[in-house]
Amino acid sequence: MRFATFTSQSRDGRLVVISTDGRRYLEVGDTAPNLLGAIERWDALMPRLSELADRLEQGEGDGFDPANCAAPLPRSWQWLDGSAFSTHGELMQVAFGLDPIEAEKPLMYQGLSDRFYGPVDNVPFPGMEHGIDFEGEYGVIVDHVPMGTDAAEAMKHIKLIVQINDWSLRAIAPVEMKTGFGWVQAKPACSMAPFAVTPDELGDAWQDGRVCLDLEIDWNGKRFGAANGREMDVGFHDLIAHAAFTRDLVAGTIIGSGTVSNADYAQVGSSCISEVRAIEMIRDKGPATTPFMAFGDTVRMAARGLDGGLPFGAIEQKVVQV
Amino acid sequence: MRFATFTSQSRDGRLVVISTDGRRYLEVGDTAPNLLGAIERWDALMPRLSELADRLEQGEGDGFDPANCAAPLPRSWQWLDGSAFSTHGELMQVAFGLDPIEAEKPLMYQGLSDRFYGPVDNVPFPGMEHGIDFEGEYGVIVDHVPMGTDAAEAMKHIKLIVQINDWSLRAIAPVEMKTGFGWVQAKPACSMAPFAVTPDELGDAWQDGRVCLDLEIDWNGKRFGAANGREMDVGFHDLIAHAAFTRDLVAGTIIGSGTVSNADYAQVGSSCISEVRAIEMIRDKGPATTPFMAFGDTVRMAARGLDGGLPFGAIEQKVVQV
Repeated sequence: MRFATFTSQSRDGRLVVISTDGRRYLEVGDTAPNLLGAIERWDALMPRLSELADRLEQGEGDGFDPANCAAPLPRSWQWLDGSAFSTHGELMQVAFGLDPIEAEKPLMYQGLSDRFYGPVDNVPFPGMEHGIDFEGEYGVIVDHVPMGTDAAEAMKHIKLIVQINDWSLRAIAPVEMKTGFGWVQAKPACSMAPFAVTPDELGDAWQDGRVCLDLEIDWNGKRFGAANGREMDVGFHDLIAHAAFTRDLVAGTIIGSGTVSNADYAQVGSSCISEVRAIEMIRDKGPATTPFMAFGDTVRMAARGLDGGLPFGAIEQKVVQV
Repeated sequence: MRFATFTSQSRDGRLVVISTDGRRYLEVGDTAPNLLGAIERWDALMPRLSELADRLEQGEGDGFDPANCAAPLPRSWQWLDGSAFSTHGELMQVAFGLDPIEAEKPLMYQGLSDRFYGPVDNVPFPGMEHGIDFEGEYGVIVDHVPMGTDAAEAMKHIKLIVQINDWSLRAIAPVEMKTGFGWVQAKPACSMAPFAVTPDELGDAWQDGRVCLDLEIDWNGKRFGAANGREMDVGFHDLIAHAAFTRDLVAGTIIGSGTVSNADYAQVGSSCISEVRAIEMIRDKGPATTPFMAFGDTVRMAARGLDGGLPFGAIEQKVVQV
């Protein structure tokens, strides 16, 4: 099943079910007005949601327009972003001029969760001098996960999968990292692609807690990368167990994969500018040449399904001055 | 004015106004069922809330019992905790065996905001081997702060002041710091004292964005510290401006001071165990001798008002195994 959230007077938006072809929708209505409320009683709502999905497959529903979309979760109580692609991690150390990170556990930071931009929202930043960068990644939304849940059990709590642009400010990021406190100024609000999908919707592309799909990224209309999600060092279920080691995870918690990145980056490209700059620094033994984003720049991100479609729809955004 | 939140069927609890002597309450009712909703339209609600406060001062209201209390904000969309007491920061580097942090900006991390324990809740942890520690601190709750707000303007957004215990796991904290990603496992949910107060309630103790009150802390019934909040290197308004540099702050965002700590720690004591351990390491030129908390241990935290009262009430909690 696929879900989207329409903008509405409520900041949590209005939940709709989307047809398999991504062209039609049916409102969920009062049973579950928004996704944040729905995820708290997901299993109980399944019969009602399945019924709507069935009606859509029988041809019912109105025409879907991503212009009406908020993020599937316009806000949530918690956003924990991993960094599970070691190729990305190794290149970022070069980009930031930092020592290699020695960590026995998965890398993860707590990010801003009170706002996720919709897929076609303009994204405001205070200045280009902060090194505006996109980061294409996948994420999962869980229901309530009790403290101490192990990875195998964690897999059962993955209710939805989403596609995220984790906006980053690269001039600030290494400065904040050096304090050990993680990122605040360097990690403003993220964006989400229009559709949140149940794992079964991805078919064979959902394997061992990984989204094994190419994440196609275009910067100003030009192909930038199409790295595949399969190379996560650990799966989403491992990231969830890591996060739940000393805390309950509230229903609606979003767990991110970190920037999708492949060892074969020379062929497939990258999912953020900073990584390309690191590749240039290594290759040219000198400074990076690719600049960060400018006001007016656009980025498009859409995972390519095994059937050639776009299971999450597409993020298509413009960077603007606040 | 003082506010508290009673536990209720809603996770956001039920908002009540508290009398100046902390002994009686009146329900706010449907106008503003909970504090998270109220802070979104705080200025508009002021007449109604003031009216309730007036009625309390005229002797109306029912008897207040902290046993009914949740945290004033049982959950919020954002919790950003500073580390604004440099005495604490310097001692923690000794405790953690880390290099001094060189930072031109205030230190701040994004913490878990989906749950704040109530003042008398038992607090569960998975194991004592993780180094269970309390951290006494102050915090402020803001209404909506637009991106780019400066410190002077930020002061006007401080609507409420709270007292917080920022629970920490000290065996995990330095490991996570070394990654640069900040804390996830080392920082489980925090606790709040029962009353959130408007700045005027503190009288002369609210100065230059600082809570100039002794934070009295007892561990297992024995006085542990009474450090004063006046020694923040920067005020709460500066911390807010720092946080809002690249993001809007959603109404209900809580900003923390970091562990209250004074240069005269030999006289006033400390607000966390880790700091005492660092003092022992420096003094004895050897290992720390004070252990971290054990299951069954209790901690009490209550700021002492200028009139001798407890403006935030008291946190009185027991540590238990999950």
